[in-house]
Amino acid sequence: MDPRLHIIFSRRSIRAYTDQPVSEADIQSLLEAGMAAPSASNRQPWHFVVVTDRKLLQELAESHPFGKMLAHAAVAIAVCGDPGISDWWVQDCSAATENILIAAAALGLGGVWLGCHGRPEREQAIRDVLGIPSHIGVLSVLSIGHPAERKEPRTQYNPSRVHRDRW
Amino acid sequence: MDPRLHIIFSRRSIRAYTDQPVSEADIQSLLEAGMAAPSASNRQPWHFVVVTDRKLLQELAESHPFGKMLAHAAVAIAVCGDPGISDWWVQDCSAATENILIAAAALGLGGVWLGCHGRPEREQAIRDVLGIPSHIGVLSVLSIGHPAERKEPRTQYNPSRVHRDRW
Repeated sequence: MDPRLHIIFSRRSIRAYTDQPVSEADIQSLLEAGMAAPSASNRQPWHFVVVTDRKLLQELAESHPFGKMLAHAAVAIAVCGDPGISDWWVQDCSAATENILIAAAALGLGGVWLGCHGRPEREQAIRDVLGIPSHIGVLSVLSIGHPAERKEPRTQYNPSRVHRDRW
Repeated sequence: MDPRLHIIFSRRSIRAYTDQPVSEADIQSLLEAGMAAPSASNRQPWHFVVVTDRKLLQELAESHPFGKMLAHAAVAIAVCGDPGISDWWVQDCSAATENILIAAAALGLGGVWLGCHGRPEREQAIRDVLGIPSHIGVLSVLSIGHPAERKEPRTQYNPSRVHRDRW
């Protein structure tokens, strides 16, 4: 693994956090990273709902089948997309989500991607908690905090998934 | 922009390349980065078709409406997904695509994301050139080379897209 790619390999799914809050400076950096993602025709169809209110974090935890860790997260970010701006919003918001997770790793934070879009009941539950308009898609909810678990950097490189010149 | 996030901000869409080939070591690193992406339930539904054959690169260039630069790229990577492995393949392959583009920037290369899935005629044209089976989705084609244009690192941070605690 090339050391220049360290922050890519060090992004792991982190679900346990200390009680330390995430600073406003770091929250700002995470959002700057998200909005540095590429988007089709540079339409930037994304919105970000940043949640630090403990009661709302607890409600989010109950609103996603794999979201228990949100109750103890320092911050959650719902990455949303406006299909009226771009019909590429799912791919664009996925790139923004990945940028935020890599940024979290680079800042010494840990996070995990909770998938929402593709499961209408999850999307609607998150919309209900956060007051997101019905025409807006909810791509993901990110749970983020200072890590209370350690995972080693890794690739999961698998040569059987690589084809040269033709499939 | 936090300097620890430099490689995220330095990923820009690069469409002009020198004639220098991309080394096999760098191609390997790009694939390691792609396969370091998160995926739903860690199912890793992706496949990567790595194209360095000049004739195929020229055919790819003619097969995508915004793909002209592929004719002069050192390498193209078609990021594909198997819907039979995971119905989250679009989001997972988008994360892998973004990882590869960030890795390219970190290695001093430049690349651009050409969207395919969502436009069935583009997907089919790429399948035809590369012999990709009909049940496999083509998320994107990445055009990559040593940059012959310079773009400054940037975020496109937009405070109107940030909501605090509720939309």
